[in-house]
Order: sequence, then structure tokens, then C-alpha cells
Amino acid sequence: MPKVTFIGLGLDSERGITLEGLDAARNASSVFAEFYTNLMPNLDVANLERLVGKKVAVLNRQDIEDSHGKDVLLAAKEGDVTVLVPGDPMVATTHVALRLSLAKRGIESRIIHSASIISAVCGATGLQNYKFGRSVTLPAESTVPKSVIQTLVENKQRASHTLLFLDVRIEEKAQLTIPEAVEKLRKILPESSDWLAVGLARVGARDQLVKAARLDRLSKQTFGGPPQVMVFPSKLHFMEAEALKVFCGAEDGDLEGTA
Amino acid sequence: MPKVTFIGLGLDSERGITLEGLDAARNASSVFAEFYTNLMPNLDVANLERLVGKKVAVLNRQDIEDSHGKDVLLAAKEGDVTVLVPGDPMVATTHVALRLSLAKRGIESRIIHSASIISAVCGATGLQNYKFGRSVTLPAESTVPKSVIQTLVENKQRASHTLLFLDVRIEEKAQLTIPEAVEKLRKILPESSDWLAVGLARVGARDQLVKAARLDRLSKQTFGGPPQVMVFPSKLHFMEAEALKVFCGAEDGDLEGTA
Repeated sequence: MPKVTFIGLGLDSERGITLEGLDAARNASSVFAEFYTNLMPNLDVANLERLVGKKVAVLNRQDIEDSHGKDVLLAAKEGDVTVLVPGDPMVATTHVALRLSLAKRGIESRIIHSASIISAVCGATGLQNYKFGRSVTLPAESTVPKSVIQTLVENKQRASHTLLFLDVRIEEKAQLTIPEAVEKLRKILPESSDWLAVGLARVGARDQLVKAARLDRLSKQTFGGPPQVMVFPSKLHFMEAEALKVFCGAEDGDLEGTA
Repeated sequence: MPKVTFIGLGLDSERGITLEGLDAARNASSVFAEFYTNLMPNLDVANLERLVGKKVAVLNRQDIEDSHGKDVLLAAKEGDVTVLVPGDPMVATTHVALRLSLAKRGIESRIIHSASIISAVCGATGLQNYKFGRSVTLPAESTVPKSVIQTLVENKQRASHTLLFLDVRIEEKAQLTIPEAVEKLRKILPESSDWLAVGLARVGARDQLVKAARLDRLSKQTFGGPPQVMVFPSKLHFMEAEALKVFCGAEDGDLEGTA
């Protein structure tokens, strides 16, 4: 029986935990959570505590990274521990580091998966998973590493779609927005104004908003609060093009040259 | 209020549904499910019916593809409908086709996401999501399309990992196994014997088995039943190398030349 179980909370609120995950949290002797690897604006810690039937200790980045998960480690000496995390555990490197640190101390761990934006982006856009190339993050800083643009351009050349993550500023519970990202990209790479892109806000939430258009048109859209990501589609299968029209409001002009 | 809600069942059993998904299924007037887009050996339809509190009508490929979801369409005229599917909805093209067919008839739909192998593979291996290039499926047939090998080789050249899906034969509830896939690859591309690969069986289940080794060593492993996938890692970050050793049993010799 593993001593530490990492449990995904999915995309939107505490109700994104799976039945298996909820069971594990209810049966654990202590429950931790972290909310610094992604923003979950609709998650309510009080509701989460009511669901699992016990206090949830919220850990910040310092608690986990600087002290190598000392609190989790101490709790694991007393009984079974669960760590609740946004999305699907281990997609964030900090979880892998914590898991390795536990293993080094002889503490077994396991993962109970939940939804991640990585697969949800297919549902939200209708774009096919196997056509996605490498994903990349657009930083908030004014200087954008060459590798970001390179990934976008190379994926396009290889007829691969790109999932573009937008930098998160956890302390401010804010994020680089889609219109800000569009402006950055158009400044660095003027020819991108003509590119087809999809802006996705709050995927999985009731007020999910997904819009596909060429970048110049997308920059005029309002997307509201986080979390937000973007997708840059490449060559489209006819069903993908149809889905972008029907589910993401793409117009025929946006799709010209993508067949 | 959408009339049709597609709900993910996650990776392993009916307990991979989220709390939000379960609520939606309980409140729907009819509940459908399909189990042909992936194998879920630990899913028990009787347990699923007990959970949602009503009969679950299981649809096969013909029910959905040949008749454009006629049963779902008819039920949506009577009330709210849910369609339960393996993994995360819409990663399979057949779901997108059904959703488009509903939209054409003016029926709104939405998705309640759950875990998918696409992100779970990061947790199971410790490999970083943003380093994965395009994924590809190895077919069961004796002739393997050039594009499969090309994807593996090109990803490697670009220092990208590859997620390799193994062909599923739903009718027989069977799948191309990891050892079979290894033999196919070594025959087509003898130099791949030396490649580092990860075999993953039943990710998310209690008896999950994940083994990293060079292909010649991996071919001697036993992986048991489905579902199975493989990962071909490229250049490794030191934390990825560490994770492959600690969680996937890679030996130092397997990792030589991957730093």
C-alpha cells in the first residue's frame, strides 16, 4: 500500500476529482493540496474539505520545493497521505521532484489521474490529438526565447498543431491573457497576424469560451478570466475544420489555406 | 442547458468518472456508454449502473458511426442525455463526428473531461509533457506505414519523446502487445534494438506495470493484459533520467547516450 497518493483535481473545481480519488482522500490520515501549479478559480477549499471530510493543508511552492516536501514526509510517517493537485498529477515538474524525493526516503507513492488541459484541448477544439507536435510556454517577460517561435514555426512546417501555454503568475492569481499573447506574437513575428489560432479560456468550466480566428481577428475578442491557453492549428483534416467552425466560431475566411 | 453531455470515464474502471460527471449522469433522463474506443478491462457495467442509478445502454461502433448516433438523437428529443466514454471524450475521432452530427440537428452538447493516457503517461514515466512530439499508432497489420517509423525517427532527431499507441482489436478485447510491437520495430528498423523505450501496461490501474529499457531487453519482459502503450524517450533531462530509474526500473546501461 503506497504511503503517499497524488490525486488530480481536474480542470475546474473540486468536483473534477474522480470517485477513486475521493475515496483515497477520505481514507487517508492526512490530506494536503497545492494550487500553485495552475489556476483553478472555481475551486473552493471549504467545499473540498467538506467532500473529503477532513482538514486540507494547502502547501505553497516554498513548502514543497525549498523543503523537499518536509510536511508530506513527516505525515507519511504517521499514516497514509494524499496530495491533491490541479489537473493531472506529474504534468508539473514539481510533482516529479517531490515524488523522487519521497522515493529517496523509501516512501512509496502512486498517482490517481484526472483531466488535464493536454487532452481536454482536443475536446474543446475538435482538433486531433495525434496531430499535436511539441507544446511550449509563452513567458510574460518582454523577451521571448527564440525556442518558442521556433517551436511554433517548426510544428507548422511539419503540419503539426501547437498547444501554447500562457505564463501564470500564481502570486497575483493572474496569467498572460490571450489578447496579450496575440500582441506579443504579432510584434515578434508580424507574418503571424495571418495565422489561424484558437483561444481557450476556462476549459471544462460552465463558462468555457473557445474562439478560433486569424490572429488579427482574435486580438479583438474578450476572453475573461483564467485559466487560458492557445492552440495554433496547422494543416486541417476536414472534420477538424468543421469542428473549428461549429464549436469555435471560425469563419470560412479564417480557414482559407489550412486544408 | 446542453441536451447531450459526453462524460469521460478515465483510465481504469467506472470509478474514474469525476464527481461532476457522476452528477450529470444521475440527473440525465438517459445514459449511453461506448467501450469500443479503448479497452477498460476493470470496468463493470453493473457497477456503473448502480452508480448512476439507471440503465446504461451500451452502444457499439455501428450504433454510433453507421447510424450517426440515431439512438442518442432520439433520446435527446425526450430529455437530457449523457454518453459515457473511455478516457477523455473527443480524443477519439468518432466522438467528434457524433458531436458534429448532433450540432447539425441543432442539439447542443458539452464535455465533462476525465483522465487520458495522453497526460497520464507523464505521471507514469516522469517524462515531461512539453518534450513530447507527435504521437502515432503502430498497426497490428504486418505492413507498417512508413509514416510510423518516420515519426519515431524525426521526433528523436528533434529531441522529442514519442507516445506510441498500439493497435486495439476491440472485437477480441485484445491489443497489439508491447513485446509484439518491439519485435515488429526491430524487424523493420534493426538499429532500434539499441533504443531506450518504456512499456506501459494498465496505467492508472492497481496492477499498473511500467518498464524502461533498451528494446532488446524490453522484449524479454512480460506485461500482462491491456491496455498497453509505449514511449520512446529522446534526450533526457536529468530528472527524467532519474524518474526512469526510480519508477520504471531503467538501468544505467539503458540510459547511456540519452543525456
